Amino acid sequence: MTNRTVSDIGEHALISRITARFAMPPWVVVGPGDDAAVIQPERGALEVLTTDALVEGVHFDRRFVPPDAIGHRALAVNLSDLAAMGAAPRAALLSFVLPDDLDVEVVDGIVDGLIALAARHRVALVGGNIARSPRLGSGQASGPLMIDVTAIGSVKIRRVLTRGGARPGDEVFVTGTIGGAAAGLRSLQAKAGGAHEEKYLRPEPRVRAGMLLGRNRAATACIDLSDGLADGLRQLASASRVGITVDEASIPMADGVAEYHSDDYELLFTVRPSSRGRLRAVKSRAGDLPITRIGIVTSDTRIVLRTGSGDRDLPAGYEHFR
Amino acid sequence: MTNRTVSDIGEHALISRITARFAMPPWVVVGPGDDAAVIQPERGALEVLTTDALVEGVHFDRRFVPPDAIGHRALAVNLSDLAAMGAAPRAALLSFVLPDDLDVEVVDGIVDGLIALAARHRVALVGGNIARSPRLGSGQASGPLMIDVTAIGSVKIRRVLTRGGARPGDEVFVTGTIGGAAAGLRSLQAKAGGAHEEKYLRPEPRVRAGMLLGRNRAATACIDLSDGLADGLRQLASASRVGITVDEASIPMADGVAEYHSDDYELLFTVRPSSRGRLRAVKSRAGDLPITRIGIVTSDTRIVLRTGSGDRDLPAGYEHFR
Repeated sequence: MTNRTVSDIGEHALISRITARFAMPPWVVVGPGDDAAVIQPERGALEVLTTDALVEGVHFDRRFVPPDAIGHRALAVNLSDLAAMGAAPRAALLSFVLPDDLDVEVVDGIVDGLIALAARHRVALVGGNIARSPRLGSGQASGPLMIDVTAIGSVKIRRVLTRGGARPGDEVFVTGTIGGAAAGLRSLQAKAGGAHEEKYLRPEPRVRAGMLLGRNRAATACIDLSDGLADGLRQLASASRVGITVDEASIPMADGVAEYHSDDYELLFTVRPSSRGRLRAVKSRAGDLPITRIGIVTSDTRIVLRTGSGDRDLPAGYEHFR
Repeated sequence: MTNRTVSDIGEHALISRITARFAMPPWVVVGPGDDAAVIQPERGALEVLTTDALVEGVHFDRRFVPPDAIGHRALAVNLSDLAAMGAAPRAALLSFVLPDDLDVEVVDGIVDGLIALAARHRVALVGGNIARSPRLGSGQASGPLMIDVTAIGSVKIRRVLTRGGARPGDEVFVTGTIGGAAAGLRSLQAKAGGAHEEKYLRPEPRVRAGMLLGRNRAATACIDLSDGLADGLRQLASASRVGITVDEASIPMADGVAEYHSDDYELLFTVRPSSRGRLRAVKSRAGDLPITRIGIVTSDTRIVLRTGSGDRDLPAGYEHFR
């Protein structure tokens, strides 16, 4: 049996095939199938909006990332952004750019991963778009597969977490472990079947931890680590106009991992020493998620890594295009 | 002087360069630069969400579409979707996928076009994302340029327009003229300098007309024509479970144009005969925008074109991937 491609099935049928699988909660007034989706905002809450794209050949390689993991990651990176704001996720829009020779089964698999993660976090998939990815020249390979997800969450105004609230003396924490995603990627590239592959393929966005941190106002600032720990420290410090000194030995590295340039979907956040009790309350409600103190906010604007052999400036983090 | 590329300037600097130009209204609680944007929803209104991507080589050709027109069209296609729901546009997120050898001046030009249209419609550009477009093989051209815009609007619940409300006996109308965008594209491809090029490059989304139609509840159903008149008629009829008979001679074709397969950003809508007075009120407030009756809703489910030489079924409209 020949597999059907995106171009065999056609745009309208593909949209129906995808959206037929979505479940709509009662606050979705108009779901997929019209010019736009219409939702009832949560009463008394602010709307939180984020968008992030996964691009084949840049953010994933289909030779070792299965379709459901592509879908999972496309939503997870956005839920992680909502978590960093303390927001509860509610809805998402899916914008696909698909090569016309792509197997429909691949699209089905991507949607499987998206729906599974969306269901766990009660995210309604309310709309989206499908566009064609171009061939870039005669005889060339078809264009890259892309998924751009927009996620919409809600948060009460006094519970919004931003990057900008850290003050000197605040303690710096991370959730989970660091370096696992990059180690998992290397393991997948080498077909090694290593322990961290799942961390790369299906990272768990820290939605509950972010909501807990915002809800009891334990954190003064928060950012997610999808661009790496070094970048996260730098961005949080820059937005707050402070410095951070990190104790290298305290960074909770994933088992057997030494390198922390990694797109782990963990949260980095700061807590005023007087809020330690609030943080304990978050920890006790966050299940078995590790929350580790890794450093302290300083009044200069340097990012310093304190090591056994002295202090050094933090190496540059991941930046696209560089 | 050598032009700087996206990869010369780097992601963070590029984001700052773009977002520094955005103006934030007071209801934007957190603008660009954090993990997500936070906005205050409009009191007592529903949120309307839509996303649409423009892909180089599929939706535009940089050889004859200047950067500002790419930016204009990327936002316009989304504002047209909001207009079709009767919504007032409020905010947008911009997701760029950029080849790393792209001139920064091209990005600046795209943002020029986006900002100009956003300002005219009071749309706040509140956030977004930049990702890299891949080279697809060694020695190959850099990947396609893409802009995926998500637009957020608001509408009161009793004013929402959908595709699904048309009833037999309703009259069918379109705004503006049909066929101009496609004629403009052909003119640009032929370097002919024809009259309709602006219709293709910088189409005007019918935001005000959509809001007026929703506000006084003149229309029973509405859709935008960004996939063409034939597709619009078919989609509206299908969602409403009705048929439509169009009088071919009444279609308001753009000057000198005979072909109506065209991505004009016009609205197609239906009006109950008893609401003619409401429609007159919309017309009188819509300035010089033509609103033309082109047909009638029927109780079967056929889309019929009534011509001087008899009735025939409407030719198939534009569908991506086909």
